[in-house]
Amino acid sequence: MTLEESFRRLWHELEPIGRNQLTGGYDRFAWTPVDDELRGWFRAQAEQRDMAVVDDRNGNQWAWWGEPGPGAIVTGSHLDSVPDGGAYDGPLGVVSAFLAIDELRAELRVGRQSVAPARPIAVVRFADEEGTRFGVACIGSRLLTGALEPERARGLRDADGVTLADAMRAAGTAPEHLGRDDEALARIGAFVELHVEQGRALVDVPAPVGVATIVRPHGRWRLSFRGEANHAGTTRLADRHDPTLPFAFAVQAARAAAEAAGALATIGKVRVEPGGTNAIAAEVHAWLDARAPDDAALRSIVAKIVTRAERCADQHGVTLEVVKESYTPVVEFDPSLRDRLRKILCARLGAPALASGAGHDAGILAAVVPSAMLFVRNPTGASHTPAETAELDDCITGVRALRAVLEDLAC
Amino acid sequence: MTLEESFRRLWHELEPIGRNQLTGGYDRFAWTPVDDELRGWFRAQAEQRDMAVVDDRNGNQWAWWGEPGPGAIVTGSHLDSVPDGGAYDGPLGVVSAFLAIDELRAELRVGRQSVAPARPIAVVRFADEEGTRFGVACIGSRLLTGALEPERARGLRDADGVTLADAMRAAGTAPEHLGRDDEALARIGAFVELHVEQGRALVDVPAPVGVATIVRPHGRWRLSFRGEANHAGTTRLADRHDPTLPFAFAVQAARAAAEAAGALATIGKVRVEPGGTNAIAAEVHAWLDARAPDDAALRSIVAKIVTRAERCADQHGVTLEVVKESYTPVVEFDPSLRDRLRKILCARLGAPALASGAGHDAGILAAVVPSAMLFVRNPTGASHTPAETAELDDCITGVRALRAVLEDLAC
Repeated sequence: MTLEESFRRLWHELEPIGRNQLTGGYDRFAWTPVDDELRGWFRAQAEQRDMAVVDDRNGNQWAWWGEPGPGAIVTGSHLDSVPDGGAYDGPLGVVSAFLAIDELRAELRVGRQSVAPARPIAVVRFADEEGTRFGVACIGSRLLTGALEPERARGLRDADGVTLADAMRAAGTAPEHLGRDDEALARIGAFVELHVEQGRALVDVPAPVGVATIVRPHGRWRLSFRGEANHAGTTRLADRHDPTLPFAFAVQAARAAAEAAGALATIGKVRVEPGGTNAIAAEVHAWLDARAPDDAALRSIVAKIVTRAERCADQHGVTLEVVKESYTPVVEFDPSLRDRLRKILCARLGAPALASGAGHDAGILAAVVPSAMLFVRNPTGASHTPAETAELDDCITGVRALRAVLEDLAC
Repeated sequence: MTLEESFRRLWHELEPIGRNQLTGGYDRFAWTPVDDELRGWFRAQAEQRDMAVVDDRNGNQWAWWGEPGPGAIVTGSHLDSVPDGGAYDGPLGVVSAFLAIDELRAELRVGRQSVAPARPIAVVRFADEEGTRFGVACIGSRLLTGALEPERARGLRDADGVTLADAMRAAGTAPEHLGRDDEALARIGAFVELHVEQGRALVDVPAPVGVATIVRPHGRWRLSFRGEANHAGTTRLADRHDPTLPFAFAVQAARAAAEAAGALATIGKVRVEPGGTNAIAAEVHAWLDARAPDDAALRSIVAKIVTRAERCADQHGVTLEVVKESYTPVVEFDPSLRDRLRKILCARLGAPALASGAGHDAGILAAVVPSAMLFVRNPTGASHTPAETAELDDCITGVRALRAVLEDLAC
């Protein structure tokens, strides 16, 4: 079977899991039956390759080629998605990891025996990277590295009020053992995550594969505007405390502040309550996602948005509560690992360096182990949408690049 | 038992049904198990009074004192609520109707025999007045009078995609017979609905009870902004087609247009999809509720809001679809019935005349039978919120006013 055929086969197996038939997008949320199918798929892939599967304390899955031990070269990504997300964000890294190992194994084969690499290699599938269900991104890698308190994680609630602890339990995983896992961390010599690019930097270069330099700082803030419900047909405008008005103002203030600072600010998740057509809303909860080239710029635009929203809320007799739900300062990937990757790939691919606007598990791991990322070109830049795509040729180039990296680091 | 005690008892029986324990508000939606409890409560009230209960083809309940027949005096209201609604909007009219009949019966009693009134009297409980679940208000009375096509009604869907037909069937009511019910209409000599006031006009007068003159024209429009989902952390501002921006503009344009025209415009129900924190929204669906003193003014403000929202949508490469979901032109209540009510009540209560900003089943019935409304003072004007209230004394005055009206019209 050619590498192209193998790629297509794995892709085809994953395709139906969590697919929205209407949109062609994916709803793959943590600790749901769909998530369980993905977990089963990962296990089956490992078993087909005689790789031992270990579920760690935080719900991350590890498949081992060679004895789990210190100095291991780890690759992988996540399989969950945003609501109506694309097929590539996450799965491309996991599929490429298994295929890169197949390639490397074939190369190391002597007769019928496969020579093991000098260092063990593992494929990891991190739990709940997108944070769709519980509002915090990279829950699996944050717990693993201690960046998220187990007690806080267990108490996170989804839109139906279900806690992460209960959701894990319902999926058959004990939530009592969550937390920093020094044993698992001690095994990681280096972590390399391959991911589809989420912008068009590689289209502009052009190059099929790039190496990450930094993850731009980013965070999520919940803005809760609280006013007063009342009848839409009888309450005079002057008597209203309508939270939708300062909320609408905040949507525009966010765009303006981002524009002025060369940053990004987005409100894509909103809950208006109680949600009657003929009732003035009582509360609006809006989630602000903001990113900037550096921490100071990010802090400054969020402060500006909040100040302006507060002023408008005041005018309407509406209160504004702002809760920072997550914040990830700028992450610089390990410079020597990054340079090594570029050297391995440069001759063949150019492998330009680029910053990531999106957060990744590799960005979380970078705080505790040498980490790096490879990006595969995204022809349209579309991301977090069913339109997200990558060319088969570029995906194959990505698998070969990852194989070269694993070979260099582990053999 | 005094009238106050009887009132408290009936109120107490209704109190727990559909109550939100957290807010103290009510979630009483059509064709749900809670609705079924309300249906059972109504039936029990009728049976306690030896009133025959008839469910009509459209899910409305009728309780008859005397043989159902032409020229009947009908009173009543609805029992359903908006999301997290108040206790009085609807139930006050049904509770007052039963108690007014008790009062009238006691008065007509000779020894142990109660003399029947000259005309039959009925208490009606209209189905699905608020339109919370299926987006169209006064479904029961609209179907009864032919103002809503049965085929359209059956196909209306709730937020979970369940059709009205399926919801009715699940509740044990056949949806095949929906539609204008000439037999039921022919029995109605006059319809008088008592309702808690939804503003503060009676506080300003002051008077405990008032008589309605008109229902101001009002309507609901769905504004669907469609843009393009993409990654919030990687998509350049210039590349975005973010529907939340023209939506936010529309919220503000609605307020401004209403302010300029002395009208009301409210967006209280909003759906942002797909709703990921780190994804630019693909679509925003917002429901505009607008009311004005007259039809021309209403048409003009809605046109202004739509034009401005369209212009802003254009600038963002977002499309805007506007669907008029319902429209009720100005309703004038039967002038001779209204004057008769004022004459009956005037000596004792003042009974000022006032316009209603909210729609009512009586406004729908007014198109085909002589109809009138009594309003009971609302001390704060709060409506469609758990804070909605009325003083016990005013409620009792309302019951007595309704008794006097029934006596005058039926005896």
